[in-house]
Amino acid sequence: MHPLKQLMNPSSIAIFGASNNPMKMGTIQLANILETGYKGEVYPIHRSEETVMGIPAYRNIAKVGKPVDLVQLVLPTDVVPEILEECGKAGVRRAIIISGGFKEVPGEVGRERERRLLEVAAKYDIRFLGPNCVGVMNSLGSLNSTTIFEPPMGGSIAFASQSGAYTAMINPYLREQGIKMCQTLSVGNEADIDLADCLEYLREEDEVKAVGLYVEAIRRPREFIAAARAAARVKPVVAIYVGGTEAGSRSSLSHTGAISGPDELYDGLFRQAGIMRADDLDHMLDLLWMLSMQPLPAGKRIAVITNSGGPGSSLAYHLEKVGLVVPPFSDGLRQKLDAITGPLTFTGNPIDLTFETNMFIFKDLLELVYESGEVDGAVIYGIMGASDFMVNIKKRFPELLAMGGKWDEAYRSFLAELATIPKEHAKPLGVMSFLGARSASIQSLIDGGIPVYPSGSRCARAMRSLVDYRAIQAALGGNVSPR
Amino acid sequence: MHPLKQLMNPSSIAIFGASNNPMKMGTIQLANILETGYKGEVYPIHRSEETVMGIPAYRNIAKVGKPVDLVQLVLPTDVVPEILEECGKAGVRRAIIISGGFKEVPGEVGRERERRLLEVAAKYDIRFLGPNCVGVMNSLGSLNSTTIFEPPMGGSIAFASQSGAYTAMINPYLREQGIKMCQTLSVGNEADIDLADCLEYLREEDEVKAVGLYVEAIRRPREFIAAARAAARVKPVVAIYVGGTEAGSRSSLSHTGAISGPDELYDGLFRQAGIMRADDLDHMLDLLWMLSMQPLPAGKRIAVITNSGGPGSSLAYHLEKVGLVVPPFSDGLRQKLDAITGPLTFTGNPIDLTFETNMFIFKDLLELVYESGEVDGAVIYGIMGASDFMVNIKKRFPELLAMGGKWDEAYRSFLAELATIPKEHAKPLGVMSFLGARSASIQSLIDGGIPVYPSGSRCARAMRSLVDYRAIQAALGGNVSPR
Repeated sequence: MHPLKQLMNPSSIAIFGASNNPMKMGTIQLANILETGYKGEVYPIHRSEETVMGIPAYRNIAKVGKPVDLVQLVLPTDVVPEILEECGKAGVRRAIIISGGFKEVPGEVGRERERRLLEVAAKYDIRFLGPNCVGVMNSLGSLNSTTIFEPPMGGSIAFASQSGAYTAMINPYLREQGIKMCQTLSVGNEADIDLADCLEYLREEDEVKAVGLYVEAIRRPREFIAAARAAARVKPVVAIYVGGTEAGSRSSLSHTGAISGPDELYDGLFRQAGIMRADDLDHMLDLLWMLSMQPLPAGKRIAVITNSGGPGSSLAYHLEKVGLVVPPFSDGLRQKLDAITGPLTFTGNPIDLTFETNMFIFKDLLELVYESGEVDGAVIYGIMGASDFMVNIKKRFPELLAMGGKWDEAYRSFLAELATIPKEHAKPLGVMSFLGARSASIQSLIDGGIPVYPSGSRCARAMRSLVDYRAIQAALGGNVSPR
Repeated sequence: MHPLKQLMNPSSIAIFGASNNPMKMGTIQLANILETGYKGEVYPIHRSEETVMGIPAYRNIAKVGKPVDLVQLVLPTDVVPEILEECGKAGVRRAIIISGGFKEVPGEVGRERERRLLEVAAKYDIRFLGPNCVGVMNSLGSLNSTTIFEPPMGGSIAFASQSGAYTAMINPYLREQGIKMCQTLSVGNEADIDLADCLEYLREEDEVKAVGLYVEAIRRPREFIAAARAAARVKPVVAIYVGGTEAGSRSSLSHTGAISGPDELYDGLFRQAGIMRADDLDHMLDLLWMLSMQPLPAGKRIAVITNSGGPGSSLAYHLEKVGLVVPPFSDGLRQKLDAITGPLTFTGNPIDLTFETNMFIFKDLLELVYESGEVDGAVIYGIMGASDFMVNIKKRFPELLAMGGKWDEAYRSFLAELATIPKEHAKPLGVMSFLGARSASIQSLIDGGIPVYPSGSRCARAMRSLVDYRAIQAALGGNVSPR
């Protein structure tokens, strides 16, 4: 069993550094473990308190008197090695070391401290994350050991990161987009477990359909490449790397003690590893969202279906800018499309419905273009915010309130149905909308596995990543059948 | 007086096409005019109804019996010319023609209809927006004649667009970002008033500090370039253009009947016009937000201040990637910074505070780097979501609830103060945060004129636009003093 399997799915956790002082990081992390719904045993270890947050506390790890699957240490730097040793003696084999002050600190002191940690770990066969990390999240076990509350748990994206902030502070952004994460791993200084280990572990996790990496430096390039190639054969891996400029490199060095390299070097390394590179965190999430939910297209031909010219043009333009194709439709297909659309509709691709009032037509159009064999995927703009558009009208026509509710319900069940079509046809669908994940309509699509982007460029880049991943998988000899 | 001045600030509006049928576009637009708080007179014109939404209706424009500043027509295509003629006879000189079915329709019929409109307009000296547009918004007069409710009104960004959807449907996206608009103009087919006219008008609007354009085709290149250059001398102009690929061009043609040209042609046209080109709507808004609120920097040197390594590295990397400079600080400046920061802080630029708990230190750091003369602007990551981070802790320590409230208040007034520093020093500030505009902390910054971006790349590109605009302004002989 991979060492991270136990670390990410512990049946019991002992936490050092939690107390009855609510301003301490350990206390906040314990509160998050308890409030997020973790089902296992939790043992606060405290030298003097009898209870911590009302839970029985233990003087030391030996006092627990039961096997402990995982310890999380949020302690002053100096005492970390000796406490880790106590844990080792008590039979603990997995640890998360939150404390900083190790290799990332300039000078020999920090490096010496980190060597000491590794000695203790080797002596007791302990595998650990950190030091200088923020904890982990696993939606399967409702485990959130980070300092940040209410992560949007679920979905099928996993994220392993050399930046702790990126795995935890991004929750509000994820919520706003409607993106969920099923596992996050903050690897900190990677004194022991590193990104290569995370890739080995995540490759085997069935519910993980796409993996994101935040990279400041790769410490074991050979092992990393091997692990990434093995992972990329079965699921897409997307990485961001920001060490490739002078200031970026200076920043990484002070952050995790990582020696970074020029952009081109990492471009080559990622290519060799079968990893797609993203510009930044938001871009990485855009791609992972699509890659984790939609089927891979057999080719590059995309249909654009819109009820508005501007967004339709933006989608068409950006799809072609990223190297996809928006082919004009055949006369035969256009005749079929013309037969079910109004006289003002342009059916050439983009299909532009202009003032179409029948919102339910999108499904028929999507099925027609998928069935035609003339495209390998599609994008849609024009999902409505249910009856939201009637906000002011409802103030003037109160009788519409009840009608609006029924319409909303019908529309949402229509969207749930629409969301099933891409998988039926094994052709991906991306949606562009300004409504945001707080709209019930958009949430219906997201729940059905359709990613939604606020611009044509973002939607197009995500569609492109499906084509890129298909090529990577084929090159690596992976399974290229639609997922 | 520019014809758009009266059109955008009418003291009375007559609307054709509103009725007591809540599902009609005209009805929705009238509801929006009434509910958004428009202070002028509103006259529904209806052939049979005595009242529309409880307001006295008039059989025709002549029956109003008072001067009408503006008419908005949402009528079947065929009757539009004759109704416009009635309006002209009644002394109306400004119109917004929402109805479609003109030049954008394939074939000679649509073009003929549009010529007829122009004949009538010429006969009565009527200047009009449209046809095939969605209406206008002007925050100064609380005027919203579009189909979309509750636009986020205010700020100092104006937007003139050949896509109606882009001026109206984007409201939820704007709200999510925290961006406001002070004026939007949907120009539709531009039969009469076009983007060049909009630029002439918006140049003179004092509260407009930055102008956005959505372009599918430029109909009068010479006039457009002249108007844009004149505008760009006094305020930045940013445009998006999506006609430059085969499908983008096909889409534009069906949308507004515009003949688009290759990307390179428009790149050159925009350059000549002093216009910055953005990739897409979201990118354009990112730039306009910064350009409309922050002072122009004297050079390219930017300080990065962060309390977290990953976001700091991303900012540093992307600032350099877009051609800005993140210079290492002098020993003298580092000593001053070291004197007020903790031992784990790296002060080299980025300034990385790591686990700094004194959130109020950002102001002192910002002032020190601005005063040093070593940078021309700064970016910050690390604004906190007030006491939000304590959500779970508060469940366990209810006594914190009151304290949290006080802390929040103190923190928000600190942020309001922080937001004043850039203007005092005439050096811009950008903030990166994952919290989003719904966070009270972030809203304090935005209210103080600081734009906030969810990624280093988006923040960096916005900072870069300030430098670009300064160069454009200098080249055009505009006023380069800090705004």
